Amino acid sequence: MALISPSRRLRRTPFSDGVEAAGVRAYTVYNRMLLPTVFDSPQADYAHLKADVQVWDVACERQIELRGPDASALMQYLTPRDLRRAGEDQCCYVPIVDNAGGMLNDPVAVKLDQDRWWISIADSDLLLWVKGIAQARGLNVQVFEPDVSPLGVQGPKSEKLMARVFGAAVQDIRFFRYAKLDFAGRSLVVARSGYSKQGGFEIYVEGGDIGMPLWNALFEAGRDLNVRAGCPNLIERIEGGLLSYGNDMTAQNNPYECGLGKFCTADADFDFIGRAALARIAAEGPAQNLCPLEIGGAAVPPCDRAWPVMQGGETVGQITSAAWSPDYACNVAIGMLARDTSPEGLSVQTPDGARPVTRRARFWI
Amino acid sequence: MALISPSRRLRRTPFSDGVEAAGVRAYTVYNRMLLPTVFDSPQADYAHLKADVQVWDVACERQIELRGPDASALMQYLTPRDLRRAGEDQCCYVPIVDNAGGMLNDPVAVKLDQDRWWISIADSDLLLWVKGIAQARGLNVQVFEPDVSPLGVQGPKSEKLMARVFGAAVQDIRFFRYAKLDFAGRSLVVARSGYSKQGGFEIYVEGGDIGMPLWNALFEAGRDLNVRAGCPNLIERIEGGLLSYGNDMTAQNNPYECGLGKFCTADADFDFIGRAALARIAAEGPAQNLCPLEIGGAAVPPCDRAWPVMQGGETVGQITSAAWSPDYACNVAIGMLARDTSPEGLSVQTPDGARPVTRRARFWI
Repeated sequence: MALISPSRRLRRTPFSDGVEAAGVRAYTVYNRMLLPTVFDSPQADYAHLKADVQVWDVACERQIELRGPDASALMQYLTPRDLRRAGEDQCCYVPIVDNAGGMLNDPVAVKLDQDRWWISIADSDLLLWVKGIAQARGLNVQVFEPDVSPLGVQGPKSEKLMARVFGAAVQDIRFFRYAKLDFAGRSLVVARSGYSKQGGFEIYVEGGDIGMPLWNALFEAGRDLNVRAGCPNLIERIEGGLLSYGNDMTAQNNPYECGLGKFCTADADFDFIGRAALARIAAEGPAQNLCPLEIGGAAVPPCDRAWPVMQGGETVGQITSAAWSPDYACNVAIGMLARDTSPEGLSVQTPDGARPVTRRARFWI
Repeated sequence: MALISPSRRLRRTPFSDGVEAAGVRAYTVYNRMLLPTVFDSPQADYAHLKADVQVWDVACERQIELRGPDASALMQYLTPRDLRRAGEDQCCYVPIVDNAGGMLNDPVAVKLDQDRWWISIADSDLLLWVKGIAQARGLNVQVFEPDVSPLGVQGPKSEKLMARVFGAAVQDIRFFRYAKLDFAGRSLVVARSGYSKQGGFEIYVEGGDIGMPLWNALFEAGRDLNVRAGCPNLIERIEGGLLSYGNDMTAQNNPYECGLGKFCTADADFDFIGRAALARIAAEGPAQNLCPLEIGGAAVPPCDRAWPVMQGGETVGQITSAAWSPDYACNVAIGMLARDTSPEGLSVQTPDGARPVTRRARFWI
């Protein structure tokens, strides 16, 4: 593996000092910001995430704030998901597509009130899309990136840790809902959400100045819980079927083939970008489908490009994320297969050679 | 320095196999694509760039293609630079700003013909901005990322090398102009341009399949010229005053304060995004200015965040790029200083402590 060169362009976060002190070994870059990927080793980080509690610097989930009288109208115009009955404590996973139905991002929209939303984005500069749309339509709404940096608390002991810092109220927060809770005299959005299947929270830290105080408070409160710095774990997120924009889907994919049809309103009585394209795809059915796949043999190399999936000499799909799972003792993977691909005789071309592939009915976790 | 974790999301390029075989040591991520930063060492790469010739994988300069009857109208609407007399062999450095005059990108626009442009982008997803604008305005133009990956040939011996592969016609290409030249039976845009002050070319490689054949042809033809794999060099680009979007300027900066006023038409008789804001800034004059700065003392650490520039206890600016220059035996830097800052008593707060700062009249190269 090569090194990563530091520069201002790869933005640090309010938690970077803590991440460095914790001995981060590797990064990826996400929304032009540093995202830790390894502290001990991917395997050791994985085992710890499933056993204890981790604090994650996911500041790279940048927010787009919509503020003004047209905020809710713009939010609805941006997504095929019907948001008209979204509650004011709700976080909504929302596909965002272009006119052709291609996925531009798969963020979480956080409704703060009727005139104010945050869009917590995956890895693309969705801010430019939203600003362009808002401006060209002459909407009465400000669109900008606020000083808000999510901090994840993930793992089976996360509720215990969070209750020590934010009080027992965290226990009442339902999945993909949030409460406003105090830290250092500031009221923060605390949601039960996060990019693992081990349970946990995301704290939308408003104001970088309280980033390290909160980081330190969590570590002090969690000493006996074996709290550690962690990060989204490749193995665990594949086991859990958590998709990664840019890995498992790109602008070349539509939400239906990504298994996100349940977030799309095919016969919508409201207008949104991509409406006609999605209606057509919904009627015809998608030409391919993302699915859980198991790759035979020993641990696969890092999946740094799409690996073709073959059947009888023909390409029938591709694998886009893969890793060796210690708990399931196999290579867990996510890939796209052509519709109606029969399950027999599938193989994948990895850089190490061909391997057998088994399609699974569901993800592991 | 930490490692960089491989994933499909950090896209490989048509030249990645060559880059790896050449022993790349470090990367940055640019437009969600791998950009090499070090082969031997920054200092050795720098000396070689100034003496011989290098081949650069700058595929991360992704292209946005505008194609259709409204392509030229859209291109003009996107930038304050007057493009109405741009020639069909011209490459134009064009600031792209939002409604408030904030820089969204500083790409090179390549005019292919009246109905077809490429925008060769710096590090932001400008595609989303352009698609959003084109769609919302109902323009008759396709906007997409084509399969085009620039390959740089930079250094004093670059013309010699290029002539061996593309023929003597390369000698007639003027600065920021291009010719269409053949390789492997394909006609490629070859421009005299690039992100160094050592002279050179950028080949817009259309079709990833000829990436490695072209890479290999350049290395075979240049053996006696001491050709090597290289990359944009931090030291040399600061010496030459080549700005880096995301480092030296962001969406918080306007083109006038970045020294790009000469590319803006203050009293334009054509419409473009940001026109009113730029007219106001042009009239008032910018509140700060990017300038060449020299930092005293031994080699500075990597500049991975803005370093505050102080004068008499007050912050008067920031340094955004800095490196030790072997040739000039000082720390060369780029920074932003408040208008009318007097030259005396300037200092910068680096992670290693305060250092004296001298404002220079011009860059080093």
